[in-house]
Amino acid sequence: MEIYDIITKKKQGLALSREEIQFLIDGYMSGEIADYQMSALTMAICLKGMDKLETLYLTEAMLNSGDTVDLSRFGKLSVDKHSTGGVGDKTTLIVAPIVASLGCKVAKMSGRGLGFTGGTVDKLESLDGYRVTLSGDEFMSQVDKINISVVGQSGNLAPADKKLYALRDVTATVDSIPLIASSIMSKKLASGAESIVLDVKCGSGAFMKTKDEAVSLAKAMIDIGKGFGRGVVALVTNMDAPLGYMVGNRLEVWEAIQVLLGKGEERLTELCIELASNMAMLSLGIGLDRAREMVKKSVSSGSALDKMAEWIGYQGGDVSFIHHPEKLLSAKESQGYLAERDGYITGINAEEIGRASACLGAGRAKLGDEIDFTAGIILKKSYGDYVKRGDVLAIMQSSTRPFTDCARHLSNAFTISDIKPQPIEIILETV
Amino acid sequence: MEIYDIITKKKQGLALSREEIQFLIDGYMSGEIADYQMSALTMAICLKGMDKLETLYLTEAMLNSGDTVDLSRFGKLSVDKHSTGGVGDKTTLIVAPIVASLGCKVAKMSGRGLGFTGGTVDKLESLDGYRVTLSGDEFMSQVDKINISVVGQSGNLAPADKKLYALRDVTATVDSIPLIASSIMSKKLASGAESIVLDVKCGSGAFMKTKDEAVSLAKAMIDIGKGFGRGVVALVTNMDAPLGYMVGNRLEVWEAIQVLLGKGEERLTELCIELASNMAMLSLGIGLDRAREMVKKSVSSGSALDKMAEWIGYQGGDVSFIHHPEKLLSAKESQGYLAERDGYITGINAEEIGRASACLGAGRAKLGDEIDFTAGIILKKSYGDYVKRGDVLAIMQSSTRPFTDCARHLSNAFTISDIKPQPIEIILETV
Repeated sequence: MEIYDIITKKKQGLALSREEIQFLIDGYMSGEIADYQMSALTMAICLKGMDKLETLYLTEAMLNSGDTVDLSRFGKLSVDKHSTGGVGDKTTLIVAPIVASLGCKVAKMSGRGLGFTGGTVDKLESLDGYRVTLSGDEFMSQVDKINISVVGQSGNLAPADKKLYALRDVTATVDSIPLIASSIMSKKLASGAESIVLDVKCGSGAFMKTKDEAVSLAKAMIDIGKGFGRGVVALVTNMDAPLGYMVGNRLEVWEAIQVLLGKGEERLTELCIELASNMAMLSLGIGLDRAREMVKKSVSSGSALDKMAEWIGYQGGDVSFIHHPEKLLSAKESQGYLAERDGYITGINAEEIGRASACLGAGRAKLGDEIDFTAGIILKKSYGDYVKRGDVLAIMQSSTRPFTDCARHLSNAFTISDIKPQPIEIILETV
Repeated sequence: MEIYDIITKKKQGLALSREEIQFLIDGYMSGEIADYQMSALTMAICLKGMDKLETLYLTEAMLNSGDTVDLSRFGKLSVDKHSTGGVGDKTTLIVAPIVASLGCKVAKMSGRGLGFTGGTVDKLESLDGYRVTLSGDEFMSQVDKINISVVGQSGNLAPADKKLYALRDVTATVDSIPLIASSIMSKKLASGAESIVLDVKCGSGAFMKTKDEAVSLAKAMIDIGKGFGRGVVALVTNMDAPLGYMVGNRLEVWEAIQVLLGKGEERLTELCIELASNMAMLSLGIGLDRAREMVKKSVSSGSALDKMAEWIGYQGGDVSFIHHPEKLLSAKESQGYLAERDGYITGINAEEIGRASACLGAGRAKLGDEIDFTAGIILKKSYGDYVKRGDVLAIMQSSTRPFTDCARHLSNAFTISDIKPQPIEIILETV
């Protein structure tokens, strides 16, 4: 088998076999296949596509390139959730304790933030003492005992995906649905959960700009999951505005607690209820309506919030933040960002809000940068609101940085015009 | 300007600007643009194409990446010829002295053979004493005095093409007409001739398998030549069988002399007359019929052969080979290769014949390998001939190698079947 022939085959639009794809990933990892050959191939894949079977084989080969987490001791109960990136997305902090309170097993690895996106692990570390690194035994026994543990990514999950993604990122070959789907799913499958609920974002702040693209990506990921015998549901959700009012680590924990107290922002709450209900449905093997009822009850009874406190405490975090969430609003400096004109808010660009928040110290420009956990943005107005010149649109908060750069990003983020926009549905489709 | 954006643009099928293409070649040569980025781009070019202007800009950027030869002292008279690779192609040895005898200026750089293809420089070096390396002054003053000099490639002509071709060769991105056309023309334009006649091969032994592809390539190269104000004509010629009877260095010089003696194989002779006539037409600014008349006269009067002897002698080669061509048939061992069945010869695969000849010592597996100048193949039968089992199809000649491997290639080369094939036209189209 020769890489030259494999590239030629894909260039001609022909499907690659399981053996060819395995050869490809093995050779790429061993260094026998060079970056310049792989990038020619990924460009051919971007332009000629891959069918369902090829996508499955690619996922399989990347999944098998490294470690896999064995969650079989939890039977059908293990459940995971994945979002295709977002700004102000604190849903994991909310849905994980909800479903854990219902008996689902959440043994979850999460990432750190980079650039304008936040990371669940950073949000958890903003609670003093929270241990993001546990031994395998500690992790498993915690899930055994309290149904939930969330740690940083460790081990060597799908290293082929990591290497391939880094190459695609510098060769303009990211935007291929089969490549995106296999990249996400190889990592999720390696993480071991029996059931997976996907939150596929679309809109100005997301990678998929249109609903059609997002639905195609969702379908491709569901096909892969089914190919591996996993239960998968995908929600296609709107990212034309950030999720909730808060962006920034402690601020997002605060907002997550508000949702668990039944006082959360409406669209964020709706999305969390739907994500959690689908997770419970798959994990517990019950109907969606029944699952939704249980999820709502878990919130209204306070058992979801209790589970959150139990989880954070078990993992060493300061539980007083959960019981006294006002402690999370502790930035030393704050300043309002004011509307420059009268009109309706017709757009809040999530990426610009993410950059604004990162400017204040809430994010990292590069791996290893220190984070100001108190920093972030509090949105005071929502999509569709009517505002007057001088009204406060957002509050910038930081203990470490000036507000100048941030204000520039906020100015780019808000679009204000004279015509009242159509309301946004948060959940566009369930696939 | 960012390479990422340029790749994205081409991936979307958009045309690149002159500035973008210049940025690309500059960055690739300086190392700022990596091989893996360039190969993603060349794959996108293979699949999305380049228009006439882009092809012209790419040629320009590659041409300007290195040295160029200044032949302006010869005014409009400088003329060059290029063949898109072939087996048994000794046309340069024939047409160069013909047109030089008519007053055209042939200041030509030629290549060495590699793999299954032969090189004009090797054929010339097979004449003891021939100097393939001359100083710039020697080269120019020889053309001043006797109208012709043929040397090996020296200097740093179109190094960007060299680097890019090496990358394309290992990433399955060779077969793109704009990339092939700009590759060939950047080198030809750097070589400085005012007029260029192209011999574009098509058929089983050539890179372009169909006449349509070959015509498209010819047109692309003519467009580039015109864009640089050069006179260009292309002949699309058949490569379903090797050119002439002889393959191997001294054997091909022998056959070239036969053509200049008016005793050459018919199709080879026809092609040489047409190539030389088009070169004379462009260089001397005369009509094609008049040029053809002059070319035929140069051969029949012996002045072309005299020019060959003058040229070889001037460059230090042993002229006795020209006057006594039988000295060129000097291999120590020879063996016939026999027909395995009765029937018509319906195919002689040029590539296999080239490999057979290389096996005997006539070619190089890698740069720097030594060549047996006496070695090669003498075809005794032509396309369309009827043969009986046991007839000699070819004679293998070598002073250094056994015949076993060679016979295997010859067995692959000949196709014999019961039905008489249609005759082959050597010149399929003049573009």
